[in-house]
Amino acid sequence: MKKLSHAEILPLRLTPEAALENNRHPIILLLDNIRSLYNVGSIFRTADSALVAQIILCGYTPHPPRIEIEKTALGAVDTVPWRYEKDAASVIRELQADGWKVFAVEITDSGRQYDSLEYSDFPAVFVLGNELVGIDQTIVAATDGAIEIPMYGVKHSLNVSVAAGIVAFEAVKAWRRSSQKD
Amino acid sequence: MKKLSHAEILPLRLTPEAALENNRHPIILLLDNIRSLYNVGSIFRTADSALVAQIILCGYTPHPPRIEIEKTALGAVDTVPWRYEKDAASVIRELQADGWKVFAVEITDSGRQYDSLEYSDFPAVFVLGNELVGIDQTIVAATDGAIEIPMYGVKHSLNVSVAAGIVAFEAVKAWRRSSQKD
Repeated sequence: MKKLSHAEILPLRLTPEAALENNRHPIILLLDNIRSLYNVGSIFRTADSALVAQIILCGYTPHPPRIEIEKTALGAVDTVPWRYEKDAASVIRELQADGWKVFAVEITDSGRQYDSLEYSDFPAVFVLGNELVGIDQTIVAATDGAIEIPMYGVKHSLNVSVAAGIVAFEAVKAWRRSSQKD
Repeated sequence: MKKLSHAEILPLRLTPEAALENNRHPIILLLDNIRSLYNVGSIFRTADSALVAQIILCGYTPHPPRIEIEKTALGAVDTVPWRYEKDAASVIRELQADGWKVFAVEITDSGRQYDSLEYSDFPAVFVLGNELVGIDQTIVAATDGAIEIPMYGVKHSLNVSVAAGIVAFEAVKAWRRSSQKD
């Protein structure tokens, strides 16, 4: 078994031009009041790999151009469609009016698991909140539901960019499986 | 739908004492030559949430006690069994002799997907490598196989702590499903 070199991997990837035009997965990551530039950069990288449709940065979430985001994103700020919108609640209402299902990634009394997504849950927006306090209750209440990653140990949460990665790749699998794109 | 408070979540979690005694998932994360203290701290947090059996830190991967790891891990260095071993190749041989299957999380010519794990793949060790150059080819060659997370976009890799989270939670699902622990 041999590790592939960058030169061997390159032709397997989309070009930057193709990435922006491609039939991207019907998944949006909405980041509300995320504090860390490194988490935002890491989520851009995840969004490129998962080929999600868009990242929406809300509230005080830092947004490009910021050198720290670009450094962590390793170029993914140019390969993932993104926009900044101050008010997450307004964006959520607009997305819902356009037919998107909006899910809070948060521990709630719903208890729905992150790996229960079905065809009817798409197109899907996943809201990720602040590193310390999570998503505001007013935003949680505005969503169509919540999903959670099971916490088997002592602590209450994952790093937000890790949670975004787990949810994004699970959503990609659910979408591809249920829409038979594979 | 209501977000749960920390006070409501607390009784749902293991105590630190129970976490170390509990029947942990037969999954080890082996970090070889990881550079970033923050990635190591984030992986400790993931390992707590996924209740993996152990983290093994190898090569120049920083290990506790380091204030930056503890800050990012938010206490998980005390709730996850871990050890430092300089030489990853030796540890891999010992683990294999003890019946563990060792997988490189790396893009190789094997092409096996990360979500193809079955009962016979456990107990399982997942090797994660350096942020820039990945896992050394000599270590890749010493494993029983490689798994990869599909890269649908332009870039070649995820942040290593994000990749660790995706693989760890997928492995937990595969183990619980295949061993019918759910």
